[in-house]
Amino acid sequence: MKHLRSIDELGREGIVRILELAAHMAEVNRRPVPKVPALVGRTVVSLFFEDSTRTRISFETAARRLSADTMTFSVSTSSVNKGESLRDTVETVSAMGVAAFVVRHKTSGVPWQIEDWTEASIINAGDGWHQHPTQALLDCFTIVGERSLTAAADCMSGMRVAIVGDVKHSRVARSCTEAFTALGASVVLVAPSTLLPPDHSPWTSSTKVEVSNDLDAVIGSCDVVYMLRMQRERMAEALVPHLGEYSSRFGLDADRARRLKRDALVMHPGPMNRGVEMMVDPADLPGSVITTQVTNGVAVRMAVLFDVLGGVETEVSR
Amino acid sequence: MKHLRSIDELGREGIVRILELAAHMAEVNRRPVPKVPALVGRTVVSLFFEDSTRTRISFETAARRLSADTMTFSVSTSSVNKGESLRDTVETVSAMGVAAFVVRHKTSGVPWQIEDWTEASIINAGDGWHQHPTQALLDCFTIVGERSLTAAADCMSGMRVAIVGDVKHSRVARSCTEAFTALGASVVLVAPSTLLPPDHSPWTSSTKVEVSNDLDAVIGSCDVVYMLRMQRERMAEALVPHLGEYSSRFGLDADRARRLKRDALVMHPGPMNRGVEMMVDPADLPGSVITTQVTNGVAVRMAVLFDVLGGVETEVSR
Amino acid sequence: MKHLRSIDELGREGIVRILELAAHMAEVNRRPVPKVPALVGRTVVSLFFEDSTRTRISFETAARRLSADTMTFSVSTSSVNKGESLRDTVETVSAMGVAAFVVRHKTSGVPWQIEDWTEASIINAGDGWHQHPTQALLDCFTIVGERSLTAAADCMSGMRVAIVGDVKHSRVARSCTEAFTALGASVVLVAPSTLLPPDHSPWTSSTKVEVSNDLDAVIGSCDVVYMLRMQRERMAEALVPHLGEYSSRFGLDADRARRLKRDALVMHPGPMNRGVEMMVDPADLPGSVITTQVTNGVAVRMAVLFDVLGGVETEVSR
Repeated sequence: MKHLRSIDELGREGIVRILELAAHMAEVNRRPVPKVPALVGRTVVSLFFEDSTRTRISFETAARRLSADTMTFSVSTSSVNKGESLRDTVETVSAMGVAAFVVRHKTSGVPWQIEDWTEASIINAGDGWHQHPTQALLDCFTIVGERSLTAAADCMSGMRVAIVGDVKHSRVARSCTEAFTALGASVVLVAPSTLLPPDHSPWTSSTKVEVSNDLDAVIGSCDVVYMLRMQRERMAEALVPHLGEYSSRFGLDADRARRLKRDALVMHPGPMNRGVEMMVDPADLPGSVITTQVTNGVAVRMAVLFDVLGGVETEVSR
Repeated sequence: MKHLRSIDELGREGIVRILELAAHMAEVNRRPVPKVPALVGRTVVSLFFEDSTRTRISFETAARRLSADTMTFSVSTSSVNKGESLRDTVETVSAMGVAAFVVRHKTSGVPWQIEDWTEASIINAGDGWHQHPTQALLDCFTIVGERSLTAAADCMSGMRVAIVGDVKHSRVARSCTEAFTALGASVVLVAPSTLLPPDHSPWTSSTKVEVSNDLDAVIGSCDVVYMLRMQRERMAEALVPHLGEYSSRFGLDADRARRLKRDALVMHPGPMNRGVEMMVDPADLPGSVITTQVTNGVAVRMAVLFDVLGGVETEVSR
Repeated sequence: MKHLRSIDELGREGIVRILELAAHMAEVNRRPVPKVPALVGRTVVSLFFEDSTRTRISFETAARRLSADTMTFSVSTSSVNKGESLRDTVETVSAMGVAAFVVRHKTSGVPWQIEDWTEASIINAGDGWHQHPTQALLDCFTIVGERSLTAAADCMSGMRVAIVGDVKHSRVARSCTEAFTALGASVVLVAPSTLLPPDHSPWTSSTKVEVSNDLDAVIGSCDVVYMLRMQRERMAEALVPHLGEYSSRFGLDADRARRLKRDALVMHPGPMNRGVEMMVDPADLPGSVITTQVTNGVAVRMAVLFDVLGGVETEVSR
């Protein structure tokens, strides 16, 4: 696999391969010296046209642990401001000798558009409302865990996952739905009608996706409750009448937390809006794995970088 | 020692231990290849909620010379702007696998507040008006010198140090007073009454601290004259009537420079306000060690990082 | 050579020495692991008082490939904003133990001005309208190629180069004219009279420089056509009546491209203004080496860093 831009170009087998590699990387990260020489001399460039310090730091930490060099190219300090085209930016940075671009852009499809302009591998770190594949992979890894991976392809078989919130504008919802169903789970998308996509069938060939406008009706039957970040902009766009009303219908409050299934996981891609979608402190929820998601993000991104850059297996062994 | 947040949690013995280690690091810095593998694979994150390029670069240079990886998380480019809480920021970055946070914040006490949210070591790089312990340590190291360290604990015994300027709002004044008196020096705080703290007795249990409003009365008797940076904001706050008047009473001008004790040191934590507190060019003062302070900052911060992260002694030997 | 601030302090022999070293570095960059330990433990600081992400990334990539540590000091996040003087900034950063400063400043002469304030090597990455020597060196390397270097000093003998556009305000034009003529080429500066310097004779002792206001008259006779970036500010300054008129007289359009000499090279220092000086897509020009210029920039900057920092030859060998 040369690029990672969407979950569907990875497929079920690709997902399992990355998860197995991530388990290996998680072991590296527990060593006293969590660093391996797999990608010495390779340069990984973060090409961020949209700010996201946490995603950028996660990728750069992953790259450094594989001994790659990292460079940040953020639009705010670049000649993109002087009107330089996306193509010229990509060709120029690429010509300096880049092994991989980690790209975030507000426009869907940019990671495909730039393919012809560089020899480097392209990793999608979020394109518009479209895809955020490494988020979905780290979420799978968090749900499945390192030990259950022997079960491989069907490791989420029989699980039911609720994805709650602004599904329509969420690349996380889209990528996660594809990945979870590929591993055998069923997914229920929970949101007000204004925040559901008109048709989610292109997201997945699976029949295992339902929609609901009623969180209370589904919360007790789910193994995973995945809360999305509620963007405050949606209120200005009149898609949500009032944040308070949104919270009362779709927020995770103490009452709903009590009705969670025993052993249900609570997840969030971050950054949380406390008091909006998260009405309880995750520290008080035994099933919260929100911090584990962040930790696993580094191992999964190491796995992805290693995979697309064709790292040598022996270089991550002891 | 797991953290370094204030001089008093270090104590006299802790200060001496760091100074001895700093002498070792200064020797590393004079080698043709000033780099040791002591902290390979450890990640040091600069968590700066207040800009300070010089302090950040000093810490990052120190970390790199110990072969650590460095990451900068500065508030201006982070989702802290989107209203993310301090706690969520710390927990998230910490979950990526951080060995130490170097924290600067405009609010006193933040380095203690975040302790429960991370397993990482915390180094205070300045919290409000409260503490800036690595500045005080590098100042001790500059005064005492590498060779005199055999004298150890009482290495500043008999010395008299004037700290001149906006003492009230200065974390540097507070940390230095604690450290200098712990090593046996006496300190005189010199400022207009509006810029002296109402009571400096909580700063130190030592009886060796006096105050004065008259720089001319004390300048001839001090072994060290430590000039503080005068913030221009103080004038707007009506604490100082006029910068010119402040300079004429508390600035170091040519006339006062002539009345310095022979061999007296002149120090400043930087950045200087030339023409305000510094009316002479330090390059013209034989006793100025302002540049040496900066050089020593790297060695002292290497010592602190090494100490809190439990580096292995043999890894800094030749 | 301790510093590289202008082409004339390098001279003809110095240029050839750098080009030979760059050919070596280009070979390093083609290796599977494009990294050599030549500058381990040395710190290279980018001191950028003017934004230029592409130049900064090129230098930092070069430094990392020689295993140096890199630090960025950009004015926008520094206490230079608090009124700190250039001298204090240089002395402070220098005191932390810097091997080389890579300096960009809007004022001509700054790389000479700072010499007395630091022990470090100084590399000029652009000072006002004055010099940009590494750009000229990478352009020479791109024209001459790696293989022709055996011809050495006169490797551009007999070549005719047109430099087209805002010559007057261009440090690139000035540095390239000096470098190209030093290697034996003749140069014709092509621009409207308002954008030509009143007198270019101080640029070079060579008699091989002409001026012209007529691109069409010279384009068919040149071996290299070097297009300069047209700054939109020039229109506001009334030096150019209208960008459209400028483009029609001095832009490279399809018609002029057809009249290029067979095998003529087309060059541009970037970033391009498509539709202003570049009316054709360089991807459609067989003679365009614009991307090669960027690639060569890394090898040439490795050569310059290696040369000024006295790298050991054996450390770049296999």
